[in-house]
Amino acid sequence: MRPAYRADPLAPKPVRVALLGCGTVGREVMRLLSEQADELAARVGAPVELVGVAVRRAHKHPDVPAELLTTDAYGLVNRPDVDVVVEVIGGIDPARGLLLDALKSGRGVVTANKALLAEDGAALAEAADASGADLYYEASVAGAIPLLRPLRESLAGDKITRVAGIVNGTTNYILSAMAAHGTGYREALDQATELGYAEADPSADVDGFDAQAKAAILASLAFHTRVSAQDVYCEGISAVTAADIAAAEAVGCTVKLLAICERVTATVPGAGPDGSPDAVVESVSARVYPAMIPLSHPLASVDEAYNAVFVEAEAAGQLMFYGRGAGGAPTASAVLGDLVAVARNRVAGGRGPRESAHADLPVQPMGLTPTRYHISLNVHDRAGVLATIAGLFARHEVSIATVRQETGTAQGARLVIVTHAAPDAALAATVAALGELDEVLGVDRVLRVENLGRSVSALGVA
Amino acid sequence: MRPAYRADPLAPKPVRVALLGCGTVGREVMRLLSEQADELAARVGAPVELVGVAVRRAHKHPDVPAELLTTDAYGLVNRPDVDVVVEVIGGIDPARGLLLDALKSGRGVVTANKALLAEDGAALAEAADASGADLYYEASVAGAIPLLRPLRESLAGDKITRVAGIVNGTTNYILSAMAAHGTGYREALDQATELGYAEADPSADVDGFDAQAKAAILASLAFHTRVSAQDVYCEGISAVTAADIAAAEAVGCTVKLLAICERVTATVPGAGPDGSPDAVVESVSARVYPAMIPLSHPLASVDEAYNAVFVEAEAAGQLMFYGRGAGGAPTASAVLGDLVAVARNRVAGGRGPRESAHADLPVQPMGLTPTRYHISLNVHDRAGVLATIAGLFARHEVSIATVRQETGTAQGARLVIVTHAAPDAALAATVAALGELDEVLGVDRVLRVENLGRSVSALGVA
Repeated sequence: MRPAYRADPLAPKPVRVALLGCGTVGREVMRLLSEQADELAARVGAPVELVGVAVRRAHKHPDVPAELLTTDAYGLVNRPDVDVVVEVIGGIDPARGLLLDALKSGRGVVTANKALLAEDGAALAEAADASGADLYYEASVAGAIPLLRPLRESLAGDKITRVAGIVNGTTNYILSAMAAHGTGYREALDQATELGYAEADPSADVDGFDAQAKAAILASLAFHTRVSAQDVYCEGISAVTAADIAAAEAVGCTVKLLAICERVTATVPGAGPDGSPDAVVESVSARVYPAMIPLSHPLASVDEAYNAVFVEAEAAGQLMFYGRGAGGAPTASAVLGDLVAVARNRVAGGRGPRESAHADLPVQPMGLTPTRYHISLNVHDRAGVLATIAGLFARHEVSIATVRQETGTAQGARLVIVTHAAPDAALAATVAALGELDEVLGVDRVLRVENLGRSVSALGVA
Repeated sequence: MRPAYRADPLAPKPVRVALLGCGTVGREVMRLLSEQADELAARVGAPVELVGVAVRRAHKHPDVPAELLTTDAYGLVNRPDVDVVVEVIGGIDPARGLLLDALKSGRGVVTANKALLAEDGAALAEAADASGADLYYEASVAGAIPLLRPLRESLAGDKITRVAGIVNGTTNYILSAMAAHGTGYREALDQATELGYAEADPSADVDGFDAQAKAAILASLAFHTRVSAQDVYCEGISAVTAADIAAAEAVGCTVKLLAICERVTATVPGAGPDGSPDAVVESVSARVYPAMIPLSHPLASVDEAYNAVFVEAEAAGQLMFYGRGAGGAPTASAVLGDLVAVARNRVAGGRGPRESAHADLPVQPMGLTPTRYHISLNVHDRAGVLATIAGLFARHEVSIATVRQETGTAQGARLVIVTHAAPDAALAATVAALGELDEVLGVDRVLRVENLGRSVSALGVA
C-alpha cells in the first residue's frame, strides 16, 4: 500500500500546473486544487502545484494571488517548470496555439475546449503523439458526466454502435420549459437568459453548434475515425414552436435536441473482394437536430439543464450516463479527474490512451441517412386527397407508418403523417413535392422522429 | 497518428493472456478476443494472444481448441510467457491463490470476482503494489456499466459523498415482477429461476450477499478506505411480501434492493484539536436492504435485470449510470476494457491506478446509521391509542413524519406510520417496544424508506 503524501525533504517533486483562463470553470479548478490538495497528492503520488494563471486582464481577478497571475499565456505555457497545462479559455484562438506549444514540448494537456477539439482535434492529437504527451478532454463533453473515459477505455474491447443523447443544457432547459408551460421559444429563451442558463449571445447553444462540436468528439472516439464539426449535420431549436411541442404531445412524444452518432452498415452489391459478391461497408453518421421522442423513452424525462447520453455496444448492450452537463463545479470535477491521470502518468511513467483513428470510416452524408418524419399538413377537404398524397409518398419511395386525418378544420382537413425510416433526402424531397400539390393548402410542421433503439409505440410504429 | 497493427516481423511482441474459467463469461471473452483481434491490437499497440484456458474438466469444452485447454490452472498462471491473467472462475478458492501467484510475479490481473475482492481485496492490492502489477476489476460490479473506472479515475479530483443503487439483477427481476403482477416472492423467484435470471441456489442473490460484496467494493473505491463484505450490513429480499409492495404502492413508492454507500459526517463535541471545540468526524456507511423508494425516483423505473447506480460528488453533483449488470457478453465487455488497459500498460509502460486506501475511515455500525421506517401495525380501535403510540416514539427519540389511521378494519384499526430519519437501532427498538404495548395487536410490516437525495414527496416527507 502506498503511503499518503507527506511534505518531507524526500517527498517527490511536485507536478506543476499552469491554468489558462480563470472564468467560472477556472475558479472552481483553483478551489478544488486547494481544497483537495492532500487528496490529490495521495492519488498522484506527488503534490499538485498551481504555478500560474493566465488571464486577459489581471485586475479583474483580485481574489487570485498576484504572484500567480499573468497576462502572458505563451510565457506561462513555455515556462520550463510547467509540467501540465489546463486550458479553460474556450474558443479557437489563442487556445489552439497555446495547446500546440504545450503538446509539442511534451507537456500534458487537460482541456475543456470542445470547439477547438471539434475543429482541429487532429492537429492536437498529432502534436501529442509526436512528443508522447498526454491529451485529456473529459470536460469538453457533458460536463461532469464521465463519458469520454468510458468510451475510450471501458469499452475499448467492445464495438460501439451508437452514442446518442442530450448534450446541451441550455437548449434542454428551453425545450423543457416550453413543454412544461406551453410557452413559445422566444419566451422560454428569455427566461433561460434571465436565469443564467443561456448566454447573452445564445447562438452557439440554440443553433446547435455546441452540440455539433460534442457530437464530433463523441463520434471520433466511438468509431475510431476523425470526425470534425463540419462533418456533423446540424439544425438548432430556434424554429421549434409551441405548436410543435403540442403536436408531439398529441402522439405521446416530446421534443429534444439530440446529438446522434451511429455506426451505419450498408451492403454494397458486387463490391466484395475480387469483384465477387456483396461487401459490407461501414460508415459513420453524426447529426444534431430537434426530434420527437416517445415520452416513455428515458431521455424524455431528462429535464432542465441535465444531460444524458445513451451508448450502445455489441457486447455491453445499452448503457446510459446522466448528470450535470455544464456549470463551473461539475466541469471542474471532470478537469480534475483528467489532471490526476496526467499528473500520475508524469510521476509513475506511462501515458494515457492516444488518439484512436485507425478505423478511418467515411462519414455518411445527411441525405443518405435514414430518418423518420412527422409531417402535419392542411389539405382540401375532398375525396381522393389521401390517395393522391399516398401516391406521392410512394413515388418518393417513402413508406407511411400512420396517417391521422382531422376533417372539418377551419382550413379544410388536416393530415398528420408519420413515415417509416427513409433516406433523409427522400423525405425532404417528399415534403417539397407535397407543397406543390394542388390538394395541399400548406405543410405546417415537419419534425424528425427518433426512437433511439426503442419502439415508438405511442405512434403505433414498431 | 499510430498506424494500425500489422502482422510483420517487426511487429511488437504480443501480450499473452491466460484465461481462468470458461463459463458464460469466459466463452464471451474468448469470442471477443477473436472477433475484435485487429481492433484490440490497434488499441494496445501489439496483438493480444490467448495462450491458455484453465478449466476444471477439459472434456466439457469441446469447442475450445485442445491446445489451449488445461486443468492445471497454477501451471498456466506461472507459465513464463504469460503476461496477463484474466480470472472469471468466481468464488474464493482457488481464485485467491491463483491471483496472488499472478500478482506476486508481476503479471497483470483482470478479474470479475466480486466475492474475492470483497473478502480479500486488501491482500490482492498489497500483492499488486509489491510487484507493481496492474489489478483491474470493472466487471466485478454492475457488469458492463463503466462504474469503477469513473469512480477511480474520472472523479479522482472530486469528493464522492454517496454511491447508491441497484446492483443485483436477479433480485431486481424478482421485485419488478412482484410489483408488475402482484405475485408473491416465491412465485416470482420460481419464474426467475425458470427464465435463467436466478440460479438453482439463489441464496447469493436473494439473501443480498452479491450486492453486499459489490457495496464493499464501491465503498472502498469511493471513500479510499478498505471496506470488506463483513463491514456491510445486509438484508435480502426473501421476507418481502406482495403486501409490502402493495403498501409501498399505496404511498406512491416501490420496493427495490438497494446498495447504499455513504460518507457520513458527524460533529463530536469537544473532540477538536487541543481538546478544544467540536471536531468533524467522517465515517463510511455501507449497507444493503430492500427499501421503499418514491415512484418518481429514477431508480424506481429500473426494471428487470438492469442495474443503475447514482453517484453524488461535491463538485460533479448527481450522476447516474445505467445498463446491464450481468450476463456473459456485458460482463465480457467490461473484462475486455480492463484487458486493453493492462495490455497497453505492458506495451507502453506505466501502471493503472493503485489501491487508494489513504483515507482509512471507520465504518459506521448499522445501529448508528440514520434510516427511516415505514411501519404498519394493527391496534385496538379505541380512544387514546394514537397518543400512547406517539408517546412511545417520543421516548425513543424517533420523530414521526406521517400517520395514516384506518379505523374499523377487521382487526380493530390500522396505523401506517412513516418516521423521520433516526438511528437504525432506535427505530428497531421502537418497533420492538410497539410489539409489547397492550394497545398493539401486531406489527405487521416494517420497511425502510430511502429517498437517496430526493424529497419523498409522495409520502409527504421533505
